[in-house]
Amino acid sequence: MWKENRVYCHSKAEPIILTQQHNGIRRIMLNNPKKRNALSLVMLEFLRKSILDEADRKDLRVIILSANGPVFSSGHDLKELTSAHGRAHHTQVFNTCSEVMTLIQDIPIPVIAMVNGVATAAGCQLVASCDIVIASEKSTFATPGVNVGLFCSTPAVAIGRAMHRKVALEMLFTGTPISAQDALLHGLVSRVVPENRLEDETLAVAQRICQASQPVVALGKATFYRQMAQSRDAAYVTASKVMVDNLALRDGQEGIRAFIEKRKPVWSHKAEDAHD
Amino acid sequence: MWKENRVYCHSKAEPIILTQQHNGIRRIMLNNPKKRNALSLVMLEFLRKSILDEADRKDLRVIILSANGPVFSSGHDLKELTSAHGRAHHTQVFNTCSEVMTLIQDIPIPVIAMVNGVATAAGCQLVASCDIVIASEKSTFATPGVNVGLFCSTPAVAIGRAMHRKVALEMLFTGTPISAQDALLHGLVSRVVPENRLEDETLAVAQRICQASQPVVALGKATFYRQMAQSRDAAYVTASKVMVDNLALRDGQEGIRAFIEKRKPVWSHKAEDAHD
Amino acid sequence: MWKENRVYCHSKAEPIILTQQHNGIRRIMLNNPKKRNALSLVMLEFLRKSILDEADRKDLRVIILSANGPVFSSGHDLKELTSAHGRAHHTQVFNTCSEVMTLIQDIPIPVIAMVNGVATAAGCQLVASCDIVIASEKSTFATPGVNVGLFCSTPAVAIGRAMHRKVALEMLFTGTPISAQDALLHGLVSRVVPENRLEDETLAVAQRICQASQPVVALGKATFYRQMAQSRDAAYVTASKVMVDNLALRDGQEGIRAFIEKRKPVWSHKAEDAHD
Repeated sequence: MWKENRVYCHSKAEPIILTQQHNGIRRIMLNNPKKRNALSLVMLEFLRKSILDEADRKDLRVIILSANGPVFSSGHDLKELTSAHGRAHHTQVFNTCSEVMTLIQDIPIPVIAMVNGVATAAGCQLVASCDIVIASEKSTFATPGVNVGLFCSTPAVAIGRAMHRKVALEMLFTGTPISAQDALLHGLVSRVVPENRLEDETLAVAQRICQASQPVVALGKATFYRQMAQSRDAAYVTASKVMVDNLALRDGQEGIRAFIEKRKPVWSHKAEDAHD
Repeated sequence: MWKENRVYCHSKAEPIILTQQHNGIRRIMLNNPKKRNALSLVMLEFLRKSILDEADRKDLRVIILSANGPVFSSGHDLKELTSAHGRAHHTQVFNTCSEVMTLIQDIPIPVIAMVNGVATAAGCQLVASCDIVIASEKSTFATPGVNVGLFCSTPAVAIGRAMHRKVALEMLFTGTPISAQDALLHGLVSRVVPENRLEDETLAVAQRICQASQPVVALGKATFYRQMAQSRDAAYVTASKVMVDNLALRDGQEGIRAFIEKRKPVWSHKAEDAHD
Repeated sequence: MWKENRVYCHSKAEPIILTQQHNGIRRIMLNNPKKRNALSLVMLEFLRKSILDEADRKDLRVIILSANGPVFSSGHDLKELTSAHGRAHHTQVFNTCSEVMTLIQDIPIPVIAMVNGVATAAGCQLVASCDIVIASEKSTFATPGVNVGLFCSTPAVAIGRAMHRKVALEMLFTGTPISAQDALLHGLVSRVVPENRLEDETLAVAQRICQASQPVVALGKATFYRQMAQSRDAAYVTASKVMVDNLALRDGQEGIRAFIEKRKPVWSHKAEDAHD
């Protein structure tokens, strides 16, 4: 059941983020469809909290990020970006946004975006920042900031690293949306599925991740982003050492023994649902 | 109307580059089909001039680069690369070529390659250096220098950064052409269209760019290439600061106000054609 | 004829690597199908030897790497990675593996992977490390280490640099295989062909490379990996200088003269088969 985590909403208002956690899978749903799930400062702060909340508990294994309504997220709340709010406020908005985007890649827990609709500007950046992206066929992606005089320069950090450049630049310069299928072709998403299969396919990926060893996944995710920022030779030094460390983990040895003995491995921590 | 910009041709010869500018769109056409639009030193120098000519005028908003004839460009003029010309001349040719290729990405104006034919060697590099590439279905792309004993090492700088590596290396080692569709699949072009739609589709993209604010597009293009050369975290520092600066621009505020007030924005500079 | 290069096998056992060389093409075949062509330490050491053996002979022009049986390679031999072997041995395994993977890119000879089956974990890394990859339609690719508690962190160095990241991360986190067609779509392979065309298509690519000048190909390959590790501007400095050096080679001038004179070039070294 979805919980109305009151911590993620204004006092008496409808919560703008809903979360639930069950069998190791935390689901975080943007829940402000009337405002097209805009990434207002408060939404960004709640999103950060909803990701970090007890993130070091062993029973959190994977996060699925989704949204209520036909718009996954329209990006920043432009009303917060008028000159009335001033440079200090603008700085706070973009710093908080960048923190959330990098946090998604820096936490030791895989984050899957489950996209069923329109993702634009910082909403598209949020998608591009997740480790895995599963999108329904009807989803579309755009970086239309240029149309309102605010070039999508921060979204470009994430999409420029995920996608082919020639396509990313056409998106940035024209604001024209691309289809889910083109997003797959050009690298922005991991997989495209029919809308009626989206939930099941995403949960299947999440459950598969839950079956792996938690410390092994954590080590693997951290190493991936670390080595990708290095030269090839430095990356191999980093990753080779990590492989040896991985083998020294209890679960590294248990996994190999189980494989040799043709039995299921028993990991050190089992995903349990302490919230449900 | 196409102008015979005499500055771009030898005294009495047919001009090897034609330009026109209308409503903010500068069109530059390689016009030496008999020589397969080879990037001779003089062609490279005229190309640079045709890009830079009054590039700081507010009414230049986008450049479309195309070519006359079935060959977009065959790359360097091999006759200039014989030993008769000597090392100093060879150095000049490659330095000039690299300057033109990087200039295309470093000027604050989006450059679109409109490709309708064969682009090979430095001609393929020229395509891969443009921000956006729109190609007709019949276009093909190759780096066949290896066949004439001159490996396409400078083209590889551009195509290696645009395309998947396994495909780039097969192209470089074998010289075999790839189709427009494969170029799209692997990242070399932004879009493939039927030949009879090429002109219209390219102009539509250019016109869309003209509708945006000129200083905003300039800031966005410069920031894209700058942050892409940085680590993710440094890129976010760069881009977040740029977003705040963008909001401090007159057009940044005008765009947001217009959006909130549901009206069309009025940018600080309107694209006008001073050449026509 | 395939040779049983005794140097590549244990004294009286079946050779685990077979090689042949004919007309400049060295074929190296993993030949331990019963063990799914596991990259045991001895296999890695023989693989290194089979690559380096007389690699500086002028008649070696291209290497084709293939495998006997339905599994191209299943990756490391897990029995060598139990705690019984100790940290020092584990370190030796991963260092040797990284050396082989980087050697493939660092030798001045193009290496083509010809894949007809399942490539997993370090076997998938081996594929991703080759310059060119030609795969049959039935081939599949996976990084399933996470299932046995050993995250594919070293394979991720190679596949993360070849493929789109969102897809690489789904592979790494779930271990789910992707088809040859998806591997093509996302950058892991250069080309996919029907199984009955695999041998012919791969040999055709190899023969094409043999027709080029050996020193020119060597210079081109070394330059590609060198400049790709640099910033764009540094890459152009590197590559422009290499172009001038290439023109100063005998074969650089011969190729251009032959082109101008409309005749076939005669390179300085002809590929001859000294082994056959």
